Amino acid sequence: MMKSIDTLIDNILISYEKYGGINAQKDVTFPNRETVVSALSDLQALIFPGFKKAEKIDSENLKYTTGERVNRIIAQLTGETQKALLYLKKDSAGSHCFKLAEQTVLALIEEIPEIRRKTQLDVKAALEGDPAARSEEEIILSYPGLEAILVYRIAHFLHIYGVPLIPRIMSEHVHGKTGIDIHPGAEIGESFFIDHGTGIVIGETTVIGNRVKLYQGVTLGALSVRKEMSNKKRHPTIEDDVTIYAGATILGGKTVIGKGSTIGGNVWLTESVPAGSTTIAKQDTI
Amino acid sequence: MMKSIDTLIDNILISYEKYGGINAQKDVTFPNRETVVSALSDLQALIFPGFKKAEKIDSENLKYTTGERVNRIIAQLTGETQKALLYLKKDSAGSHCFKLAEQTVLALIEEIPEIRRKTQLDVKAALEGDPAARSEEEIILSYPGLEAILVYRIAHFLHIYGVPLIPRIMSEHVHGKTGIDIHPGAEIGESFFIDHGTGIVIGETTVIGNRVKLYQGVTLGALSVRKEMSNKKRHPTIEDDVTIYAGATILGGKTVIGKGSTIGGNVWLTESVPAGSTTIAKQDTI
Amino acid sequence: MMKSIDTLIDNILISYEKYGGINAQKDVTFPNRETVVSALSDLQALIFPGFKKAEKIDSENLKYTTGERVNRIIAQLTGETQKALLYLKKDSAGSHCFKLAEQTVLALIEEIPEIRRKTQLDVKAALEGDPAARSEEEIILSYPGLEAILVYRIAHFLHIYGVPLIPRIMSEHVHGKTGIDIHPGAEIGESFFIDHGTGIVIGETTVIGNRVKLYQGVTLGALSVRKEMSNKKRHPTIEDDVTIYAGATILGGKTVIGKGSTIGGNVWLTESVPAGSTTIAKQDTI
Amino acid sequence: MMKSIDTLIDNILISYEKYGGINAQKDVTFPNRETVVSALSDLQALIFPGFKKAEKIDSENLKYTTGERVNRIIAQLTGETQKALLYLKKDSAGSHCFKLAEQTVLALIEEIPEIRRKTQLDVKAALEGDPAARSEEEIILSYPGLEAILVYRIAHFLHIYGVPLIPRIMSEHVHGKTGIDIHPGAEIGESFFIDHGTGIVIGETTVIGNRVKLYQGVTLGALSVRKEMSNKKRHPTIEDDVTIYAGATILGGKTVIGKGSTIGGNVWLTESVPAGSTTIAKQDTI
Amino acid sequence: MMKSIDTLIDNILISYEKYGGINAQKDVTFPNRETVVSALSDLQALIFPGFKKAEKIDSENLKYTTGERVNRIIAQLTGETQKALLYLKKDSAGSHCFKLAEQTVLALIEEIPEIRRKTQLDVKAALEGDPAARSEEEIILSYPGLEAILVYRIAHFLHIYGVPLIPRIMSEHVHGKTGIDIHPGAEIGESFFIDHGTGIVIGETTVIGNRVKLYQGVTLGALSVRKEMSNKKRHPTIEDDVTIYAGATILGGKTVIGKGSTIGGNVWLTESVPAGSTTIAKQDTI
Amino acid sequence: MMKSIDTLIDNILISYEKYGGINAQKDVTFPNRETVVSALSDLQALIFPGFKKAEKIDSENLKYTTGERVNRIIAQLTGETQKALLYLKKDSAGSHCFKLAEQTVLALIEEIPEIRRKTQLDVKAALEGDPAARSEEEIILSYPGLEAILVYRIAHFLHIYGVPLIPRIMSEHVHGKTGIDIHPGAEIGESFFIDHGTGIVIGETTVIGNRVKLYQGVTLGALSVRKEMSNKKRHPTIEDDVTIYAGATILGGKTVIGKGSTIGGNVWLTESVPAGSTTIAKQDTI
Repeated sequence: MMKSIDTLIDNILISYEKYGGINAQKDVTFPNRETVVSALSDLQALIFPGFKKAEKIDSENLKYTTGERVNRIIAQLTGETQKALLYLKKDSAGSHCFKLAEQTVLALIEEIPEIRRKTQLDVKAALEGDPAARSEEEIILSYPGLEAILVYRIAHFLHIYGVPLIPRIMSEHVHGKTGIDIHPGAEIGESFFIDHGTGIVIGETTVIGNRVKLYQGVTLGALSVRKEMSNKKRHPTIEDDVTIYAGATILGGKTVIGKGSTIGGNVWLTESVPAGSTTIAKQDTI
Repeated sequence: MMKSIDTLIDNILISYEKYGGINAQKDVTFPNRETVVSALSDLQALIFPGFKKAEKIDSENLKYTTGERVNRIIAQLTGETQKALLYLKKDSAGSHCFKLAEQTVLALIEEIPEIRRKTQLDVKAALEGDPAARSEEEIILSYPGLEAILVYRIAHFLHIYGVPLIPRIMSEHVHGKTGIDIHPGAEIGESFFIDHGTGIVIGETTVIGNRVKLYQGVTLGALSVRKEMSNKKRHPTIEDDVTIYAGATILGGKTVIGKGSTIGGNVWLTESVPAGSTTIAKQDTI
Repeated sequence: MMKSIDTLIDNILISYEKYGGINAQKDVTFPNRETVVSALSDLQALIFPGFKKAEKIDSENLKYTTGERVNRIIAQLTGETQKALLYLKKDSAGSHCFKLAEQTVLALIEEIPEIRRKTQLDVKAALEGDPAARSEEEIILSYPGLEAILVYRIAHFLHIYGVPLIPRIMSEHVHGKTGIDIHPGAEIGESFFIDHGTGIVIGETTVIGNRVKLYQGVTLGALSVRKEMSNKKRHPTIEDDVTIYAGATILGGKTVIGKGSTIGGNVWLTESVPAGSTTIAKQDTI
Repeated sequence: MMKSIDTLIDNILISYEKYGGINAQKDVTFPNRETVVSALSDLQALIFPGFKKAEKIDSENLKYTTGERVNRIIAQLTGETQKALLYLKKDSAGSHCFKLAEQTVLALIEEIPEIRRKTQLDVKAALEGDPAARSEEEIILSYPGLEAILVYRIAHFLHIYGVPLIPRIMSEHVHGKTGIDIHPGAEIGESFFIDHGTGIVIGETTVIGNRVKLYQGVTLGALSVRKEMSNKKRHPTIEDDVTIYAGATILGGKTVIGKGSTIGGNVWLTESVPAGSTTIAKQDTI
Repeated sequence: MMKSIDTLIDNILISYEKYGGINAQKDVTFPNRETVVSALSDLQALIFPGFKKAEKIDSENLKYTTGERVNRIIAQLTGETQKALLYLKKDSAGSHCFKLAEQTVLALIEEIPEIRRKTQLDVKAALEGDPAARSEEEIILSYPGLEAILVYRIAHFLHIYGVPLIPRIMSEHVHGKTGIDIHPGAEIGESFFIDHGTGIVIGETTVIGNRVKLYQGVTLGALSVRKEMSNKKRHPTIEDDVTIYAGATILGGKTVIGKGSTIGGNVWLTESVPAGSTTIAKQDTI
Repeated sequence: MMKSIDTLIDNILISYEKYGGINAQKDVTFPNRETVVSALSDLQALIFPGFKKAEKIDSENLKYTTGERVNRIIAQLTGETQKALLYLKKDSAGSHCFKLAEQTVLALIEEIPEIRRKTQLDVKAALEGDPAARSEEEIILSYPGLEAILVYRIAHFLHIYGVPLIPRIMSEHVHGKTGIDIHPGAEIGESFFIDHGTGIVIGETTVIGNRVKLYQGVTLGALSVRKEMSNKKRHPTIEDDVTIYAGATILGGKTVIGKGSTIGGNVWLTESVPAGSTTIAKQDTI
């Protein structure tokens, strides 16, 4: 016999008593995903003024639009960062966390010109690296790789400052949009280019040099995923001027892809390769 | 000479006479994708109370919020399930389908505590399996793999009950968000962990044991895709405690990955491997 | 000492003086992504009448709904196409670009019956090619591959007509939703089937015949990505009746996959294979 | 001591047992106010094509826009009318009410050209009657009196057809917007002009001739408001060419304002006045 | 010569230095009008369960819907009430105001059954008082007078509790919708009926008995509006069973309309009238 | 027999051929009501910084918020003003109208400090004139009269500059919200106070001095409404320090209410009264 709806609801309520971690009640307030994403969208508009939908930016209003954006970012991101810090340090005073959050967000705003400098190099790297690219504008308007890199540069900054949860919310947001999964903890150099990008994974302790190109489906991952490894370097080092083609998997914290090397598509690598080398996968045609 | 817009419209109307299956007129009403997604979102909130955006859940209002959600899910999902059943059984009476739909949805509500039990194990598996994971909360808030598994567990339940279209709408919704494509027909055990996840495909007749880990880009697919195969087991069996690394492709209904095995990245497998084995792809570095 | 917010804003404004390409001010107006996506959504509804959310299409209102949609598409897409053409030909008169834009959009409307004919073949190819597919309706409602192909057919038409930016905005929109990245410049035949699809990349100068099937993670890419190659054929040719399994990478403008061939999963190919051949990747199980 | 929230909620639930008419549960579904208002907005756009916000109506799309609107009105209004009829005739079969609802709505659509003819006369009456009016367009765009009259003409038609609730929902909607309260049961002739209009009340059994002008605050009301009067003529008759100035109150079902009369501001009248007469209120200045 | 936009903006900024009261910066946060209106809408739904747009209330979900509403009202209204109290008592501690706000809102929730009892009497008074009224449902769905009275009863409760600003925001909200302006400070008895209502004004110190009927345009106002009167009774007393017709103006704190009296339309009264009397305005017809 | 829906639609289309003024096709584009209302809302926020819903204005962001608002007002209002001017001068060049529109809007921005000065006086007049008013903040947050006066001051400025349609759209917008109908052509002095306000009408050629108070339902109207009067003064002159109580009607272009006079409620006046006089309506109590 069918149970009554009231009984079904009571059973769910009973299950809330049982299962600890998957219930978030009372004590915690998490950063609000929508507010974080809204601030991220403002940050992107700060990097690329004039590309957003309805705005017509000219010298008249650029100053006010920029100031308004900066103030909105500060308001939104400080609140969410405070929540994230409170979550981390459950015994801290709220006011201490607020001060810390405020300093962090102001430091991020101060970093914007530097992030813009790097972003311009990333755009140029895309224009040079993709024969199909027609202009910088086309890249800014439609390349998912560029968006993923930009969000990484912002999330990485917050990660370095010790903000929990928010960098991951940012990186998972852009992962959902682009299929490119860059952990905020990775260290990535300048003039970085990702083409197509779907399926790319760049692990937490990856180190990437300058002028590196990655194609879709590349994994820079860990060999061992034992929990006790969590404070060790588990992901590879990619030196300057390396190109890694579609679907290659490179694993391990001691694996180094030497400067200027080329890794072919679908290669599976768990050991270092010397500078200037080329690695390709084997197959047979019957 | 340019045709008039009226003529262009008439030509499109004429094309509606010609092409059968791609016009849905008159007789059918499909489940509404937006309503299904809205009910799915309520189901997710039922599983993880307190993680949704604006809500502050405490012991005061948990009862009412839960009851309200359950009633809303029943209202929304019963209607859409009825449409789906009517589409399947075109000659059935509407009232018969409504009764069936109602029973199915109530059964799903009854299953929620069991789905929550399994979900908690999935969260724990992620925490143990990923050195980069800092807490259960971080996983619930930002791991796409966990979301894909949870939606699978809901869609699978409806699939088992014989509901057409809706389970696929659910699984394609989360496929679009996460890049993880789990067919609702697959059978998946407990403590399942998907890391990164983009590009994963798990076919309709796949069987997966307990404590299995999958990385991004893994395909558990069919060898033969002849239409007459549609009622046969076409996808592999993955036994307990197997780990399959990024980009591996395992095909065929008779292919069994033995208990405790490890499949390396980018491996392409169409035959069974014994328990405890390790399979890796070959390549050369020049 | 912390700088004042005003100083931080001024520094950002100064950086706007410095970095050229990543600021779009004054002179340019780009096509509005949201308007393009809205027109694309109307075009999809024109192809599949009766599948959209709330509408009940019957013989009474089909005529008016269709006429209304066509007029809305013309209004929205002509304006955005004009902006795109003005961006391309910066010295052109606006009125000249408007005329060109209008002709292009009307030609697209005229093409709709032909696109519908091809789409019906694509739906049938999916029904035949996927044992898990239950009906044409299920495919139209939930297969991301079909959506990606349809958007490609629309974007390709505009690309052939020389419209800049908009075809890429369309293809990147559906790339974001499905993980399938088809460059609008590719030439693709009839009865094309993509299963699962996440991670597929089809490059700008790819040529694909009829009745081709692609699985997830397939790359049809370029071998050399030097900028001076941009006007040459850099991507492979896939002849009729070829099937390419998950994760295969096929590169190079001179690479031809002969009629009726099968390419196994995870293969990495940079040379042609003869008609009727089968190519599979090698690996060892230890 | 403060009661617990649970007790407070229970007390409200107990009050739901007690008070009959002000709880609407289970058996009834009322017409949805938002759907009625949406259909009303479409009807207004049908009367005044080209005045609505975003539309650009030209000969190309007028046909399709009109057809689409008519079909949308039929869909929305038939459903709500059926609910209203079911509420009225609680023992009727739903299908009978649906048929009746459909006939009523189609009859309303058939009446549209006649309503447009009358509306044009109302617009002209406003242009002639108000020295401040600059053009017909200004009247259509900004005169609340015209909107109230138009909604009355639509609501009156449905009232005559015996539709309950919906005409009142329509008239109260426009009452809220304009402060003009015309009961759908009133009978009003052609070339009717209301200036400013706030505070006007026109009762259920009022009869108004042609070329009548009313100013703000005029009441055409009942003398006796005993319930047993509800089927009798309780409100006055205003013959052709009468002008009634601001704040006049005219009461009683036998009160007749003779053809061509003028009623001054703030007059309070409960008896008939002959044709051609002028009535003014008295006062003293000290 | 035209000033630059920057200069125009600076001039506005300078004016912000000058004009005190009309700039609200830094120190104050006012109750948010939208949140207050949203809570008011929930309160109305609590009074009339089952009349709101999309809901289907039955015995299954009434409990949860009610509980959810009560919790939402508490959350929203407590916050806004706290802001209002902080604005009043600028030197108070926030926590003190929060406690007070919480007690006030809980007391309002406790009052709901009593407000429902009075509302039912108001509905019955409307049904009896208006020959045009067909049913209680019609009154609840479409009578603006009933809405104004209900909002008054809620706002009056908060006014009595000493909450500033919020009662006025509530009464001005319903004033804007209905044209009926009842000051939250007025004291109004049971079975109160307002017909049509546009233009009614009921002043702060008005006292109204039971079974009183008011028609549109009635003013119950003050004779003297000198500021020093603000703590005195400035508005009239209306005893039980009085009817006041359209447009009557009754002024003065000592003016008493005796039990059972009738005041005719457009009367202007500044002195008391005895019980059982009838007052009408004079005029001449020429 | 019921006509087909197609026939009904055709009949409506035929009626579009017949009725001239009530169809707006092809040639004209009217100012968009929503854009005008949005700019009006920004203008109000410019007058009262810090009172709008979500904003927290402090000295940090006031500059940017103000600049952003001014630029948004310029962008929105210039476009709509251009449309209005083009409608007026149908043979004018678009660019000429754009220039004119731009100058007008900049002049309005330049006037803002002066409008703020007057508004502050209006707020003070309300605080002094209404014993029920507790503070300037309460007046700004909840007095409809203040909103109507402010919108009048803006609309009047545009009216003086010869902008058609837009001032009426603004005044009808606030008329709908407050029931107060002030024609943009009226001339109104400083320290103007409207209490309650519903039903007030102030005609196009009214002249009002300083420190005037109006209560609800007051009409300042025309005696003769013959069309040939449209360029003459048709509405009364109200000198300084006059108070007019609820429901008074004052008509005629030669009617002057002398300095310091008081007009009682419900008075109907068509002739001048001397300075310092008091006029009251007569009535009898039976």
